Amino acid sequence: MKKKRVSIKDIASDLNISVTTVSFVLNDKAEEKHISKELTQKVLDYVKKVNYKPNQIAQSLRTGESKILVFMVEDISNLFFAKLARLIEDLAYKKGYKVLFCSNDNEDKKTIELINLFKVRQVDGFILVSSPGIQTTINQLIEENIPLVLLDRYFPTLDTNYVITDNSDATFMAIMHFIENGFKNIAYITIDATQSQMDDRLSGYKNAVNKYSLPNYTLEIPFNEAIRDNSEVYIEEFLKKHPDIDAILFATNYLTQAGLKVIKEQYTDLIDRIGIITFDDNELFKTYSPSITAVAQPTTEMAEKSMELILQLIKNKEKALPNKHIVLKSSLVIRESSKKRSQS
Amino acid sequence: MKKKRVSIKDIASDLNISVTTVSFVLNDKAEEKHISKELTQKVLDYVKKVNYKPNQIAQSLRTGESKILVFMVEDISNLFFAKLARLIEDLAYKKGYKVLFCSNDNEDKKTIELINLFKVRQVDGFILVSSPGIQTTINQLIEENIPLVLLDRYFPTLDTNYVITDNSDATFMAIMHFIENGFKNIAYITIDATQSQMDDRLSGYKNAVNKYSLPNYTLEIPFNEAIRDNSEVYIEEFLKKHPDIDAILFATNYLTQAGLKVIKEQYTDLIDRIGIITFDDNELFKTYSPSITAVAQPTTEMAEKSMELILQLIKNKEKALPNKHIVLKSSLVIRESSKKRSQS
Repeated sequence: MKKKRVSIKDIASDLNISVTTVSFVLNDKAEEKHISKELTQKVLDYVKKVNYKPNQIAQSLRTGESKILVFMVEDISNLFFAKLARLIEDLAYKKGYKVLFCSNDNEDKKTIELINLFKVRQVDGFILVSSPGIQTTINQLIEENIPLVLLDRYFPTLDTNYVITDNSDATFMAIMHFIENGFKNIAYITIDATQSQMDDRLSGYKNAVNKYSLPNYTLEIPFNEAIRDNSEVYIEEFLKKHPDIDAILFATNYLTQAGLKVIKEQYTDLIDRIGIITFDDNELFKTYSPSITAVAQPTTEMAEKSMELILQLIKNKEKALPNKHIVLKSSLVIRESSKKRSQS
Repeated sequence: MKKKRVSIKDIASDLNISVTTVSFVLNDKAEEKHISKELTQKVLDYVKKVNYKPNQIAQSLRTGESKILVFMVEDISNLFFAKLARLIEDLAYKKGYKVLFCSNDNEDKKTIELINLFKVRQVDGFILVSSPGIQTTINQLIEENIPLVLLDRYFPTLDTNYVITDNSDATFMAIMHFIENGFKNIAYITIDATQSQMDDRLSGYKNAVNKYSLPNYTLEIPFNEAIRDNSEVYIEEFLKKHPDIDAILFATNYLTQAGLKVIKEQYTDLIDRIGIITFDDNELFKTYSPSITAVAQPTTEMAEKSMELILQLIKNKEKALPNKHIVLKSSLVIRESSKKRSQS
């Protein structure tokens, strides 16, 4: 069954010439090496005839270019990352690059393991949604001059290239919208994780409620409980403890899903009274009853900017370009769930 | 800034011995090649001291194993594939494999291009959600003895390893559930694509309505219109043309989303009267109003079986194992949207 791949050796032996000659012809060095036009043509014809395909691993060893990028996310099954992955893949495809996706589960150990694996495989660059404690690994990548763009999260203490959104501004805007529509007891439900984007979202909420002297109702669900789908228990208890709450901003899409489930199952009448805004939009939120107001991060722009940046870094690998910090704005997609309610 | 990677050459030169000697030691051939224990230890100590890391590309050239699998789907941003991708990634990680994801958009050209790229990069195996016209390419992979498992879709005319679900049985079961709950004018909204899983789903619908002499209301939206988010126009027209329809089975998740949007925006009163079942479950369907009944494919089992199969193929590459055809059952998750309605 197994067909043997034709090698340069086979070609050299079949044509009764040296491997070096074949190699020169295949690497466009025939003229430089004074190989006759006749012999060059003979090799090229034969290569075509036997359908020889150069071994790309060997080739990437030589050129140092693999045309492969790594896009590491927290969880590829999270719709926000799946969308970004698809956008980045399409942009890369147009530029002749393939993208390796992987999930690090926000774990440093896994992140470092994956980075080291890809590093020795000589990928051309990394677009990284980082776990919280890998500053040393990132510094190593930078020292080794490996093209790297952080996406979604960054390290305030590290000077790196990154593309993020203004998370603090986004939650501030969402809370302001609640306030304008008459909501007064606005809760913020988030996860307790050391992630820059989560810190920023929390501070945007705090700034807004402080500014208007409103009460602070924050629920921080432990990260490990949230990823084990245990958020519902926390949300139910939180709502029971604070019956005054008249609006909730959910810090991520999956917390919104958990919250909607709790409301639907435990507090059926609440859905028409409580204001709801979710972070990250989802097609189904449009047709939900009520349709759900969402903070929409500019995924297309995030993908475009990261790709632009990583390609610049790859192209100018030998130059020390100044790091770029790209901060994009999110938008508020206003739907039914945050509309002004009649006074009871 | 740039640190140079330590090479075998550097080590040999630093220790004033030959590259061959270093290579023998690093490849566990010191004893076989009669290299003294003292020298062996000296090399190993030095390698540790300078933190030498073998070049894995060169290593995979030698061993022929890259520990990388390719999982090709139609669209990684489709939640069904994103979920499968995550499950496969986790299973692979536990076995020491990394997974390369990519999307083929159901296009043969793109599929073939991607397969060829990964083939020359010598990945260890392919798990493939195939585009419809790549029988020749698949035959080539088989002839070249490259481990391959088709997932979700198969070719009735090709004897390959595959893991699919019984799609015909699944739609039959869904329509039977509608019939048992008193629905009589049951529509099936699908896409017009030459894909085995779609053919099978359609035939399950037809078998059920034929068996009970019910009218056949099938809408087949052209594939290219569906992926361009133009399904809504087709669904709206279809519902206008057939006011008798009292239930709809949607063949994919994204068609359900489009359908729900049309109903919400154009036929507001219909949502409480019409029966709805979707193919492929989604967390948000649980809390939708009404909650949506779903045909749930066994994604965990699909991922497990594909991984089991591909690892067997990799392990037994030199043996000609008989092809395995694994057909899994879907389940019907019954919720509010398909419940019996009171007679009007």
